[in-house]
Amino acid sequence: MKRIKILQLINSEKVLDDVLIKGWIRTKRDSKNFSFIEINDGSCLKNMQVVVDENLPSYADLKKVTTGSAIAVSGDLVPSKGSGQKWEVLAKSIEIISLAPDTYPLQKKRHSDEFLRSIAHLRPRTNKYGSIFRIRSELSWAVHNYFRERGFRYIHTPIITGSDCEGAGELFRVTTLTPPFPTTPDEKIDFSTDFFGAESNLTVSGQLSAEMFALSLGDVYTFGPTFRAENSNTSRHVAEFWMIEPEMAFCDLIENMDLGEDLIKFLITFVLDNCSQDIDLFARFVDKQLISTLKNIVSSEFERIPYKKAVDILLRSNKSFTYPISHGLDLQSEHERYLAEQFFKKPIVIYDYPKTIKPFYMRMNEDDETVAAMDILVPRIGELIGGSQREERLDVLENRMDLLGLPKESYWWYLDSRRYGSAPHSGFGMGFERLLMLITGVTNIRDVVPFPRTPGNIDF
Amino acid sequence: MKRIKILQLINSEKVLDDVLIKGWIRTKRDSKNFSFIEINDGSCLKNMQVVVDENLPSYADLKKVTTGSAIAVSGDLVPSKGSGQKWEVLAKSIEIISLAPDTYPLQKKRHSDEFLRSIAHLRPRTNKYGSIFRIRSELSWAVHNYFRERGFRYIHTPIITGSDCEGAGELFRVTTLTPPFPTTPDEKIDFSTDFFGAESNLTVSGQLSAEMFALSLGDVYTFGPTFRAENSNTSRHVAEFWMIEPEMAFCDLIENMDLGEDLIKFLITFVLDNCSQDIDLFARFVDKQLISTLKNIVSSEFERIPYKKAVDILLRSNKSFTYPISHGLDLQSEHERYLAEQFFKKPIVIYDYPKTIKPFYMRMNEDDETVAAMDILVPRIGELIGGSQREERLDVLENRMDLLGLPKESYWWYLDSRRYGSAPHSGFGMGFERLLMLITGVTNIRDVVPFPRTPGNIDF
Repeated sequence: MKRIKILQLINSEKVLDDVLIKGWIRTKRDSKNFSFIEINDGSCLKNMQVVVDENLPSYADLKKVTTGSAIAVSGDLVPSKGSGQKWEVLAKSIEIISLAPDTYPLQKKRHSDEFLRSIAHLRPRTNKYGSIFRIRSELSWAVHNYFRERGFRYIHTPIITGSDCEGAGELFRVTTLTPPFPTTPDEKIDFSTDFFGAESNLTVSGQLSAEMFALSLGDVYTFGPTFRAENSNTSRHVAEFWMIEPEMAFCDLIENMDLGEDLIKFLITFVLDNCSQDIDLFARFVDKQLISTLKNIVSSEFERIPYKKAVDILLRSNKSFTYPISHGLDLQSEHERYLAEQFFKKPIVIYDYPKTIKPFYMRMNEDDETVAAMDILVPRIGELIGGSQREERLDVLENRMDLLGLPKESYWWYLDSRRYGSAPHSGFGMGFERLLMLITGVTNIRDVVPFPRTPGNIDF
Repeated sequence: MKRIKILQLINSEKVLDDVLIKGWIRTKRDSKNFSFIEINDGSCLKNMQVVVDENLPSYADLKKVTTGSAIAVSGDLVPSKGSGQKWEVLAKSIEIISLAPDTYPLQKKRHSDEFLRSIAHLRPRTNKYGSIFRIRSELSWAVHNYFRERGFRYIHTPIITGSDCEGAGELFRVTTLTPPFPTTPDEKIDFSTDFFGAESNLTVSGQLSAEMFALSLGDVYTFGPTFRAENSNTSRHVAEFWMIEPEMAFCDLIENMDLGEDLIKFLITFVLDNCSQDIDLFARFVDKQLISTLKNIVSSEFERIPYKKAVDILLRSNKSFTYPISHGLDLQSEHERYLAEQFFKKPIVIYDYPKTIKPFYMRMNEDDETVAAMDILVPRIGELIGGSQREERLDVLENRMDLLGLPKESYWWYLDSRRYGSAPHSGFGMGFERLLMLITGVTNIRDVVPFPRTPGNIDF
C-alpha cells in the first residue's frame, strides 16, 4: 500500500478505508482503553490524530514510543469525535519504524530561536520552521510563476565570476591554490596558476550577465544565490542569500517601478491565498499585525518620490537618527523605515538618487547629477528592491567608468552590448529572504534560511 | 503605446491595428518601392517581417540600418503576401533606437560553436543559442512544476559548506584571507581566522542537507548550482553546473527508480509539447534523429538490471573499450553508452553496485557487498541520474564511516537524523545540463550554459 500524505487526508471530502500514513510522533496520550497519537509528516502544519484501541495486537509496543519516533499507521479515516479536527484515523495496525531516545532535543515545549539555530538540521520538524520552509517553497514557485506568465525567461547567471558588479569589494575568493602560494614579483598571489587562470569570486549579483540576455531575449530574470563577505553580525545579514533579478529590454524607470510594485503585491497575495494555514501560525504567534500589514501593502498604491524630497521629509522630521542624513548621503535602514512606517505608512518608491552614491551602470539623468535609480522600501524591512534604468549610451557609460577609474578592458563584453544594437533597458534586485521576513513577520534573517551562513558559522 | 512581443503577434488569430514592436534587425532587403526588414525580439525563434513603403517619412533613414541594429516599428499586423509567414507588419512609423556598426560579429552567416563561445555575451542573439536558452528556461519551469504537483517542497541548500558530500575532494575553497596567510604550527593555513572560522568549500551536492529536510517535511528537492574543481577539458565537464536532487522520506530504491524514470519522461514530454518551434531547429540542424531518440525514451520501459549483470553483458560484448571493465570496477562513460545505445537501445537503470565504488551514505544490502545504489543511463549521454536508498540504520552507518576513516564528529548533525526517528529514505541527483544536452542534441556542455566555467576560463 502506498502512503498517503496527511495534507491529503485533512482535505478529504469523505471517509476513506484503509489508508496508510507515515510520519513522526508529536504527542501521545493514553486514556482508558485508548491511546491518542498526533502524527506529523511535514506535508502540512496540522497533525493527524490516530486513535489506537487497546485490543490492537501492537498496542503493547506503543508503550515505548516517544516524541520524535517514526511510525507507520494503517487504518480508516473517520470523522473525529474530538473537537479541533475534522478527521482522525482509527488504527488497524501500527509499525514502529524507529524510536527517538528521550535525549531528542525537540520535546514538547517552547524552544528559543537561538537554540533552534544550533540544531538547524532538526528545526524544520517544529511547527514554526516547518511553516517557514513550506512558505519559502511556495514563494519560490510564485516567483517563477509570475515571470513565466509574463513571458520572462529564467537565466542561470554564473556564480563564480571574474567581475565585481557592485564595486563594493566584499567578495569571497574562489580558489584551488594550496600553500606554498605562487607569487608575482610584487609579492601578490599569482592567480595565473589558479583554476580559472585569474582571480575569481562568488557573484554579488547576476545583473551584468542578465543584461546580456535581456538584450537578446527581451525579458529575463535570475533567481539564485548571491554572496557578500560582509563581516556584520546583524539580524539582517547573511553571507549567502537568494536574489531575484528581472532585467527588461525596451523598459524605462517608470515601467521598472511598475513591475516591482506589481511583483510584490502578486507574491504577497499568492502566499495569503495558498499558504493560509502556515501564515496563520505567524499571525497568531509571531506578529499579530501581520495580516493587516500585508493587506495594506497589497491594497495601497506605492508612494513614488524623488530622493531629494525623501531627504527633505527626513530633515523636517525632527527625529534624531543614529546616522545623520543630509542631501547627498545614502539612506540608512532607520531612514527607510521612518519613511515607510511612520511618514507614509505604506511602501514607497524613491527614485533619482545622486550619482555619487550609486554604481557605474545606472543611467545618467538630464541634470547630470542624479541617476535613474529606484528603490522600493516597505514597512518593517526597509529596502526590499533596488533597481535602475541602465546606462545604454556607450559614450556616457565609458565617461562614467573613466571617472570612476574602472578598468574598461575588463568590461569589454559589457560595453559590446552598448556598441551593437544598444537599447534602453531596466531591472532590479529583490532580496528573497527579506521578502520572506516581510511575509512571515520573522525578524532574524537566519531563521528563514535552511542553513544560514554568517561570520564564524559554517555548521551543517 | 506598449510594445507587443513578436511571439504574441505570430500566434495572433486576427489582424491587429496599431501594434508596436521593438527588436533587432536580422536582415533587410530592398525591393522596388519597398523594404523588407526581419526583426527578432528574442521572444521566439521566428522573426517578424516588416514591410516599409518608400513613401514613409523615415524611409530615407532606413538606408543606414544594419544587421543587429535596434529599432521600434509601429504599424498594422496584416496577412503576409509572401510565403513562409502568416503575418507581417505594415509599417506606419519607424524609430531607429541604435545602430550596430558593421564590425558587429553576428553578420548573416554560419558561425562555429567555438567562435560563438568566445562571444558568449552575444551568442543568445543567434537562432541556435536563443533556442537553447529558451528551452533551458522552460525546462527549469518543468522541473519545478513536476515536483510541486507531487507535493515536494523546494529547499535552498547551502552553496558554501564545510562538508564534502561525495568525498571526491575536487573542491573549490571559499576564502576572504589575503597574503600573508596566517599559518598553524605545522605550516598549514590557519582557517580559524578565515571568514567562517573553518575551511569552507563550494558544495558538490545538496544531498546531505536535503536529507535533513526530507526527514522533516517528507518529499523535498533542490535545484541549484553545484561545483567540481575537476581539471578536465572535455565536452562533458564544466566547473559550475546545476543539479536537481529530490529526496524522499519513506521511499525505497524501487520507488526511487520509479520517480527518476517518470521525471525524465515528464520533462522530455513537456519540452516536446511546449517548445516545439525551438526543438524543431535542433531536429533540423543539429541531430536528425533527435525527435525519434526522445520519443523512444518516453515510450520505452527503462530496463532495470543489477550491476553484476551489466558487467557480464560488457564482458561478453567482445568490444574493445578504452578502459577495461571487470567486476568491482566503476563503469566509464563508454560502457554506459554501449549498454544504453547498442545493447538495450533504450534507457537502463543499473542498481546494486559494489560498496567499494560508492559513497558512505548508501544503504548496505543484505549481502554486505553491494549497496542500494541506482544510476539511470540514457543513450547519447550515459549517466543522467545517480541515486540511492540512504543508510538509515545508525549502527550500520557509523561502522561504514569508521571503515572509511570519515571523521564522525564532523557529521554529528547528519548522524542525529539517524538517532532521532530515523526512517528509510532515498533520493538522486540529475545533472540539469546533461538533460539539456539530451533534449537538444547539443554535444558540448559549454553550449547549454549561459557563461560556462572551465579550467582557465572565467570570462564574462
